[in-house]
Amino acid sequence: MPQYNPPLRDMQFVMHEVLNVVDELKLLPAHADMDVDTINAILEEGGKFASEVIQPLNLSGDAEGCKLDKTTHEVTPPKGFKEAYAKYVEGGWPALGCDPEYGGQGLPVIVNQAFYEMLNSGNQAWTMYPGLSHGAYEALHAHGTPEQKATYLPKLTSGEWTGTMCLTEPHCGTDLGMLRSKAEPQADGTYKITGAKIFISAGEHDMAANIIHLVLARLPDAPAGSKGISLFVVPKFNVNADGSLGERNGIYCGGLEHKMGIHANSTCQMVLDGAVGTMVGQPNKGLAAMFVMMNAARLGVGNQSLGLTEAAYQNAVAYAKDRIQMRSLSGPKAPDKAADPIIVHPDVRKMLLTARAYAEGGRALNTYVGLQLDKALSSDDEDERKECEAEVALLTPIIKAFITDNGWIATSHCMQVFGGHGYIHEWGMEQFVRDARINMIYEGTNTIQSLDLLGRKILGNNGATLKKFGKKIATFVEDEGTDEAMQEFINPLAELGDKVTKLTTEIGMKAFGNPDEVGAAAVDYLRVVGHLTFAYFFARMAKVALQKKDSGDPFYTAKLSTARFYFAKLLPETASLIRTCRAGLSPLMEMDEALF
Amino acid sequence: MPQYNPPLRDMQFVMHEVLNVVDELKLLPAHADMDVDTINAILEEGGKFASEVIQPLNLSGDAEGCKLDKTTHEVTPPKGFKEAYAKYVEGGWPALGCDPEYGGQGLPVIVNQAFYEMLNSGNQAWTMYPGLSHGAYEALHAHGTPEQKATYLPKLTSGEWTGTMCLTEPHCGTDLGMLRSKAEPQADGTYKITGAKIFISAGEHDMAANIIHLVLARLPDAPAGSKGISLFVVPKFNVNADGSLGERNGIYCGGLEHKMGIHANSTCQMVLDGAVGTMVGQPNKGLAAMFVMMNAARLGVGNQSLGLTEAAYQNAVAYAKDRIQMRSLSGPKAPDKAADPIIVHPDVRKMLLTARAYAEGGRALNTYVGLQLDKALSSDDEDERKECEAEVALLTPIIKAFITDNGWIATSHCMQVFGGHGYIHEWGMEQFVRDARINMIYEGTNTIQSLDLLGRKILGNNGATLKKFGKKIATFVEDEGTDEAMQEFINPLAELGDKVTKLTTEIGMKAFGNPDEVGAAAVDYLRVVGHLTFAYFFARMAKVALQKKDSGDPFYTAKLSTARFYFAKLLPETASLIRTCRAGLSPLMEMDEALF
Repeated sequence: MPQYNPPLRDMQFVMHEVLNVVDELKLLPAHADMDVDTINAILEEGGKFASEVIQPLNLSGDAEGCKLDKTTHEVTPPKGFKEAYAKYVEGGWPALGCDPEYGGQGLPVIVNQAFYEMLNSGNQAWTMYPGLSHGAYEALHAHGTPEQKATYLPKLTSGEWTGTMCLTEPHCGTDLGMLRSKAEPQADGTYKITGAKIFISAGEHDMAANIIHLVLARLPDAPAGSKGISLFVVPKFNVNADGSLGERNGIYCGGLEHKMGIHANSTCQMVLDGAVGTMVGQPNKGLAAMFVMMNAARLGVGNQSLGLTEAAYQNAVAYAKDRIQMRSLSGPKAPDKAADPIIVHPDVRKMLLTARAYAEGGRALNTYVGLQLDKALSSDDEDERKECEAEVALLTPIIKAFITDNGWIATSHCMQVFGGHGYIHEWGMEQFVRDARINMIYEGTNTIQSLDLLGRKILGNNGATLKKFGKKIATFVEDEGTDEAMQEFINPLAELGDKVTKLTTEIGMKAFGNPDEVGAAAVDYLRVVGHLTFAYFFARMAKVALQKKDSGDPFYTAKLSTARFYFAKLLPETASLIRTCRAGLSPLMEMDEALF
Repeated sequence: MPQYNPPLRDMQFVMHEVLNVVDELKLLPAHADMDVDTINAILEEGGKFASEVIQPLNLSGDAEGCKLDKTTHEVTPPKGFKEAYAKYVEGGWPALGCDPEYGGQGLPVIVNQAFYEMLNSGNQAWTMYPGLSHGAYEALHAHGTPEQKATYLPKLTSGEWTGTMCLTEPHCGTDLGMLRSKAEPQADGTYKITGAKIFISAGEHDMAANIIHLVLARLPDAPAGSKGISLFVVPKFNVNADGSLGERNGIYCGGLEHKMGIHANSTCQMVLDGAVGTMVGQPNKGLAAMFVMMNAARLGVGNQSLGLTEAAYQNAVAYAKDRIQMRSLSGPKAPDKAADPIIVHPDVRKMLLTARAYAEGGRALNTYVGLQLDKALSSDDEDERKECEAEVALLTPIIKAFITDNGWIATSHCMQVFGGHGYIHEWGMEQFVRDARINMIYEGTNTIQSLDLLGRKILGNNGATLKKFGKKIATFVEDEGTDEAMQEFINPLAELGDKVTKLTTEIGMKAFGNPDEVGAAAVDYLRVVGHLTFAYFFARMAKVALQKKDSGDPFYTAKLSTARFYFAKLLPETASLIRTCRAGLSPLMEMDEALF
């Protein structure tokens, strides 16, 4: 059975040695009393929860899956899930990143995010139950009426109730403008909602007393398309004025999806049959309100694949050190054994280091963006808030798509290290691969992310936000450019920065001629910019490691080796990606649709 | 449910218009009477079997899996599998590529191979039952005693009995030198074999009256390592002198593996408890004898992923034409509909064309190698036989690794085209991905293939075989170099050929200093050479398509577009691969094992 050790040392390195998050957090009124010890203590406890409570349920949960009682419409998640959730609530974990006004602990985003990385490493399917709740919490917190907030936020904060996002319908996922669910206004100010939703994660289960669904639907007089969609809160059980649970509402699970992975999460087809809801935010502005949730969710999805990458890496390393098979080509390395441990083979190391570098790069990028998000949420300087918000918006599709694509590559490599055993369920490696696959799809496919990045976030403002981020890289390059030891990192970083600038301009020019050029280049372009961010953070990490490598702590030696590996073996992918970006649209469009 | 249409037109194009296989086959005494119509008629009938008989069982077979009765040790494959196999036998299909001396039809390898591509498209898990049999047939045909041949080959040819390969043990897969199963010689010339085997595909089932296991084991006095392994034939039921079935032999299924994919194939843990067997070939030379089977199996595995790539492509195209979602960035393309079919989006086309190009390139390479194999087996010129054999040996690891890695990429892309629906079992797309994953592992992991290619097949003879194959490319470049219309294909092909020559020399030089340099470069190197072969065959296909494009048959227009797409969007991967090859060994080895 797979194992998991929370990577506390690396988290602390990124937070305290590279990004100095405490110094930055202290400038924010909400986090003025934050300190290193508090963060570390929470991560340590959180790591125990992830590794001791939910990780042991990951493999069994996958094998068992969820069960739907078609008479009662009730869903039972796998054995142990309910009890683990009770412990989660008892430990006060749901409140970590919530507003103290509603009983939350008001901790910074970066702390909650690091905690979630570990939860995802332990058990992605389980983590989606509280994860979706937190999304619902955020949407209500941002757009709910005072009554809605008073009714729902304390219970979502305590974890007594969970939440969902009900967006997708059978005929529309990416294109929510086509959705058909209807909301009929009632005399008492509520709405009766009717429709069919699919792919609703954590849509029904027995782990919490109530489930708060956030549902997109159309008012009777709504304009067509995406400008006619409103957001509603629809509880599983209606809530009485005194906060107690009332009648069962007309929203229920009509079927469970049979999926490639995340078997232990209940992915539900939800039927709304005149379910009673109240509106969240303004009529016909539901999509905008839902996007609050969606952006957070996109960062969360990147974090899911980061968690899986780390977990897969750890297990592949353990196997590669233990499994003996063949001799090293350069002569026996373990002559006392019948064969060498497979970690002596260069390609096994390449697969392991790929996963390691993708985990470490992803962790640095995620933590950086988490910190910018804390500033965007809590700075008392409006300009800083706006600037940080724009940077988070720029980097969100990169986290979502780059880290999940990397997670797919990394988990597959880690599975490959196990040879035939990797294909067998009991080792847990193929589960990481299957679970990782959904992250490239949901919350906006990775193609959608790339269009968001290139079309909206970059070309949409003539590259202004990208330029600002690029300036940070340029400043770092300038500052470190004279340090001999940093050349191996700084030179390729500077070179890639220049190439990105040039490539962006080129695509922008071509897009004037034909907007489809954006769609032709976007996916490859996103990976190029993803590598630029990883190269930047690996260079920053290398700088710290170089400063401390004589400390005797081998952590710094390892960090330098990983950074070198990243620059030597992963960054060169950009050479091809830039070429395929440049190859442009015509090779994609010349074939007539009928000839496919 | 997924659909499948046998790609007969493309198969015929490759065989008859590009490779002119009939002209070549007619030079071989065994196939002197072969003609185009015969080949086409067989493929058409074979395609019907694949699409009408076994394809409808693919999705249900995956959901149902195999069942083991732990008391009787009998395994029941999914519903319909036994009946489909009976039809297969009744149709005479097992005999297609078998020796007429034992009841076979003696058809060329390329015909059997094209038939198997279609079977794999229809149902890889089902196809493995007859596929493994054919491997056992080949090993016995090459190394069996006259008695063994007389006993087993007619029944394997008719399909009344099936066969397996029993190699892997829990502690050894790649490194068969460590295997422990024991064979005790008996007074009557037979052996009693004891041991535990795992991952035995089609190891037990109820589809045939007997199962002929080929088992690797050690004689009591065998030297240690791979030079002490012998091969035995161990039937499930002993065979009486009159050919009738005797007692149940001591080989049985102890457990079924729970796998990521190919659920419908019974992957068995086989227990040998004093099972009676007879030796195949010479004592202690079992590994060499087994390699006959293994090489054929490696080509077969590449063919499996080719089949999956084609099937996934067809279904993704159908979905992309049908599913409407969002508008084209360059303006509505289906203004009468609520949204455009997603095939208008450039990245959807990129995913589709990637699968298409990998299918068409793989089919050309496979057919070419099949033809060389026919010549290696049936030419009456010994020099030609040897030359063809060497070329097949060179290209086998490329087929195994390049086509299966491509299949993983392609099936995943095709699944992505379906968005969230791709992740759901009922659409069948995620099954293609899960099934495709095993092909990168079994019959020698893709890392092992790359070491075989670079270390043994190329550097092992100072590049002589590669040079011969390279000369064919150079001749083609020379011949077509003056044709203006061919420049777009010929120039990048010629350039890549030069780069491969240089890269091979570079790695060879470095390997003198440290043999681990081979292991560091091999996987990336194999993909570079894989692309060289695809570029060569796409250029050859483009040549034919250019000659015929005014014929009015849109097939040629489509072929040219696919070739252009391949050169513009897939071949550039070599730019990165060459860089990472060159980055060499040190970034992989600098980290101390303890620091992983």
